[in-house]
Amino acid sequence: MSGKHQIKVLPSGLVLQVDEGETVYEALLRNNVPIEVVCGGKGVCGKCGMRVLKGVSSPPTAKEEKWAQVLGSDVRLACQVRMLSDGVIELNQAAATAKAKILTWGQEVKTEVDPTVTRREVLLPTPSLEDQRADLERLLQAVGVQSYDGYLLRKLSDCLWGSKFDVEAVLYDGELIDVRPKVPKAGVYGIAFDIGTTTIVGYLYDLESGKLVSVRSSYNDQIRYGEDVISRIEFASKGQENTSKMQDAVVGTINNIIADLLKTANIDKDDVYDIVCAGNTIMASFLLGSSCYHSSRTPYIPSFTSPVRVKARDLHLNSNPSGYLRTLPSISAYVGGDLVADILISEIYKHEGPVALVDLGTNGEVVVKTENDFMATSCAAGPALEGYSILNGMRAVSGAIESVSISEDGNDVYYRTISDDRPVGICGSGIVEALAWMKIRGIVNKAGRIVENSSKRVIHSQGELQYVLVYEKDSKTGTKIVITQSDVRKLQVAKAAIFSSLLTLAKLCNVDVKEFKKLFIAGAFGTYTDPFYATVLGIFPELPKDRYTLIGNGSGMGASLLLLSKDKWDLAKELAKRVKVVELNLVKFFKDEFIDATFLPHKDEQLFRATLDSISKLRRT
Amino acid sequence: MSGKHQIKVLPSGLVLQVDEGETVYEALLRNNVPIEVVCGGKGVCGKCGMRVLKGVSSPPTAKEEKWAQVLGSDVRLACQVRMLSDGVIELNQAAATAKAKILTWGQEVKTEVDPTVTRREVLLPTPSLEDQRADLERLLQAVGVQSYDGYLLRKLSDCLWGSKFDVEAVLYDGELIDVRPKVPKAGVYGIAFDIGTTTIVGYLYDLESGKLVSVRSSYNDQIRYGEDVISRIEFASKGQENTSKMQDAVVGTINNIIADLLKTANIDKDDVYDIVCAGNTIMASFLLGSSCYHSSRTPYIPSFTSPVRVKARDLHLNSNPSGYLRTLPSISAYVGGDLVADILISEIYKHEGPVALVDLGTNGEVVVKTENDFMATSCAAGPALEGYSILNGMRAVSGAIESVSISEDGNDVYYRTISDDRPVGICGSGIVEALAWMKIRGIVNKAGRIVENSSKRVIHSQGELQYVLVYEKDSKTGTKIVITQSDVRKLQVAKAAIFSSLLTLAKLCNVDVKEFKKLFIAGAFGTYTDPFYATVLGIFPELPKDRYTLIGNGSGMGASLLLLSKDKWDLAKELAKRVKVVELNLVKFFKDEFIDATFLPHKDEQLFRATLDSISKLRRT
Repeated sequence: MSGKHQIKVLPSGLVLQVDEGETVYEALLRNNVPIEVVCGGKGVCGKCGMRVLKGVSSPPTAKEEKWAQVLGSDVRLACQVRMLSDGVIELNQAAATAKAKILTWGQEVKTEVDPTVTRREVLLPTPSLEDQRADLERLLQAVGVQSYDGYLLRKLSDCLWGSKFDVEAVLYDGELIDVRPKVPKAGVYGIAFDIGTTTIVGYLYDLESGKLVSVRSSYNDQIRYGEDVISRIEFASKGQENTSKMQDAVVGTINNIIADLLKTANIDKDDVYDIVCAGNTIMASFLLGSSCYHSSRTPYIPSFTSPVRVKARDLHLNSNPSGYLRTLPSISAYVGGDLVADILISEIYKHEGPVALVDLGTNGEVVVKTENDFMATSCAAGPALEGYSILNGMRAVSGAIESVSISEDGNDVYYRTISDDRPVGICGSGIVEALAWMKIRGIVNKAGRIVENSSKRVIHSQGELQYVLVYEKDSKTGTKIVITQSDVRKLQVAKAAIFSSLLTLAKLCNVDVKEFKKLFIAGAFGTYTDPFYATVLGIFPELPKDRYTLIGNGSGMGASLLLLSKDKWDLAKELAKRVKVVELNLVKFFKDEFIDATFLPHKDEQLFRATLDSISKLRRT
Repeated sequence: MSGKHQIKVLPSGLVLQVDEGETVYEALLRNNVPIEVVCGGKGVCGKCGMRVLKGVSSPPTAKEEKWAQVLGSDVRLACQVRMLSDGVIELNQAAATAKAKILTWGQEVKTEVDPTVTRREVLLPTPSLEDQRADLERLLQAVGVQSYDGYLLRKLSDCLWGSKFDVEAVLYDGELIDVRPKVPKAGVYGIAFDIGTTTIVGYLYDLESGKLVSVRSSYNDQIRYGEDVISRIEFASKGQENTSKMQDAVVGTINNIIADLLKTANIDKDDVYDIVCAGNTIMASFLLGSSCYHSSRTPYIPSFTSPVRVKARDLHLNSNPSGYLRTLPSISAYVGGDLVADILISEIYKHEGPVALVDLGTNGEVVVKTENDFMATSCAAGPALEGYSILNGMRAVSGAIESVSISEDGNDVYYRTISDDRPVGICGSGIVEALAWMKIRGIVNKAGRIVENSSKRVIHSQGELQYVLVYEKDSKTGTKIVITQSDVRKLQVAKAAIFSSLLTLAKLCNVDVKEFKKLFIAGAFGTYTDPFYATVLGIFPELPKDRYTLIGNGSGMGASLLLLSKDKWDLAKELAKRVKVVELNLVKFFKDEFIDATFLPHKDEQLFRATLDSISKLRRT
């Protein structure tokens, strides 16, 4: 038995070809699927844990047997296991996401495949002196449609005659958008995009099978014009030229991702007909060339909230010029299509409630649904939690501290960096863990003040207290890495924004945050942060562990769903209308809730009783 | 009484401002309206004859009184007359067209103004925290439409907020294509184009008043790739690059004309929303980027015949990017939208018949309508009659002989050149007059043979007989200008194609060509050639003078009509379906008719009895 096998990789749902000779790890690497391995695939580090859910695999090696005692008896190591038949494997969540610090994974999209783009084979009657119908009319009559893209006339006749009138017609929602020879290998493809403020992820799908073919991500090139939405709006509003630069930056990033996707999958750009983009309202507006100036000022009016469709050529996209790009419906200036995507993927709309959803990217959005209400709001939570505006904060790249622990006496700090490089700074998940451990070890108090003499690492510098994570001698740059009192204040503000938003919506819906039957967590922050640390800091409410559900990149998965299903598109439009946006500034009790939530974990300790108990247990150890 | 007056200039219908101090001639010059004057406006040459149909004008000068004895008592000289009130004037046809050797004039377009583009003033409710509707949705709801151009989002928000929500919406057939501040001077404009093989004419209209604002013309830049349609198809078919060059050439010409029109009228390009193009089927196809290869080979299948609409930006047109360009419906590969335009302008469809229409440009088309039939065909008539392929033929530019007469003995030639320059060659109208006079003076016989010794100007050269129009010493280039035996043969073939096509259609409709109640003549050839000469050569059938009706540039006028009237657009589509195209090669008796028609004027002299009588009278003088 030898040859190639097809395996489906969960949680992404990606389908790969593996050679029987190669390990799953080698196949993943070859296909650029993110997989964390520290030892280089020698079976030493145990980081590439996975399960074989279906199919025949090689028997466990001695190294795997050793690791099974630690990781669980059904856990295999991707660097050791070889597939002997088609099958399905599931990567450990850490393994699936660790190296891809841009969040690309999400719950597999499950839907009936009924895309907007369809193709139809057509054999036309051959022209003659008795049948002199023009090429266009001949084709339209055979396909049975009236609507077509005039741009098509550039290729129509050559294609019909070159293919002896035996062709394929490609339709987009009833409009003829392509005619092409019957080439067995040529498919019909679409790309779903998560257009984040910081990162952009593209998912290439075969629109006929509904299969995910490839995934690629990149930082949003708009970062050069400002790291957060507000600074970008300021830049874009300085004139038409700047607005165009902002549009060009995002289109450039999208085009690079498309080029990369097509190259990997060996697909022609003209076979890509549909591009669905989920992003916040501002990202969608920049993409279509709007400056968004008035979205940032009271009364916060966006350029558009309905879904917009434009020809790919109007944006100079690297795809079929007659195809389309469409944006998801959004709800308001700060509750965008990305949240509509989360709602679709979480299926929160199916629950009677009370249930909640939190999406924490660079911006934060919160949804609460009960039997009677369905409310959403946004909060400026992200930047500090992602490492921006923090003294030693940095993006999740090589040398960033991503995980932290502090000894009981507060004097020893254990940490892990991305790529195991010498530390340069600290990224989002590292910051949250550092602050959580500072709280656990009593280095910060309930009010968020760094406690003098609580550890020998607490020092005075630049007129404020700091906690030293890494001393000069150990850092790559030769300068120490610290969490300052100002940093703590910023984190308090950010985390208070999230929790108080959730609490305010809950109150408006007449439910208690502890009553949530489900809390769906979308976005990078929630994926990379253990809910335990999030509750220590009072970011998420205290709930039994099984009520938290990670949905990963809900924005990208939601866009994928809409790419594959016309029904879901209609549902998205309906949902966008159903959800009521709450303007927190207009809610009288919000400010008080916000102030109470700045405490660690909260002014009202009853809200986090179990967590505080755990902390005290950790101290007693 | 002083100031500015508004005058309408017939036959074009152009409306001009004239200052009371200036002569009509000066006003025409200032507005670039073609007007022939040889003496420089001194009242000496008498070429600028015109009539005042309405309004108060200055009393006739002494010079005018002298010319009135020659030209008619109601004829004034444009270089002398001054308008003292608003009014209507009519230029002599020669004066209106002579200097514009590209045919731009046509019968004034008469229609109710009901354009596809409309504008509407909208005052939107101001946004507030209670009304946070997005800019787009706010506007769409106020205007009451759902369809819009996504491209608009690049300007929408800035416009709404910049204009304090008091704006104008521009709609194209129910689609929102523009939003703009209420600027009192800004209008809504459209341009009708006659896309000829050789020349392109643009007519700029105010779409709200229906007024013609300005007219501009230019040679079709495609000429560089071939002078006739067939050679251009050959060039374009050599690959996508060549097809694109062909498209770029016509778009470039159109854009230059638009730039010129806008500059003259001081209009912004963004105020031009609709562009209607009439041309033959091949010209329309090149414009939209089709190579037309299969139009030129049996069974002669065009790329498209239905009217096509594309966004102006898809062709990089020098007009509003959200506006449209549309082509007229055409009938077959060689019976195009230009003929549909002629049919509309002549209103031949209203006649019970029998009536006929002939459009002679670079290609020729013929229509016959009777009570029961409505048929059209095309013939490759033009090139020779326009001067191409004739030894000393040239375009109608400075130094071209445009009018010829020959003395009774055949030894003296009188001629007029364009710009009264020394002669360089001979253009279309000159060639027809030269051959007609050669026939009248017996220098060519009925069979088209040049008769040796019939004039001392008949010489042997290059192995054939030639008739010398201009000797070496008189020509600008120092070489003689001649009509060769080969030239005569080519002209015989061209003119036979026209007449036999008309005769064949007439026969198929069971009518005699002498029975036509009307013969509508469209295109440059018919406009610049006196029907007398055309019948001497047997190009047009012999009919009483009042049955010939010149419609000028029917193609441009038809496009104008469709620009101004939605009803007429529906009518055009219906007419394109009603007219039956006759494939002459499939008509058995056509070949014989063609051969008979190569004689001068025809093998059957009974068909041209009266004309032959006139000729003999001319000889007797």
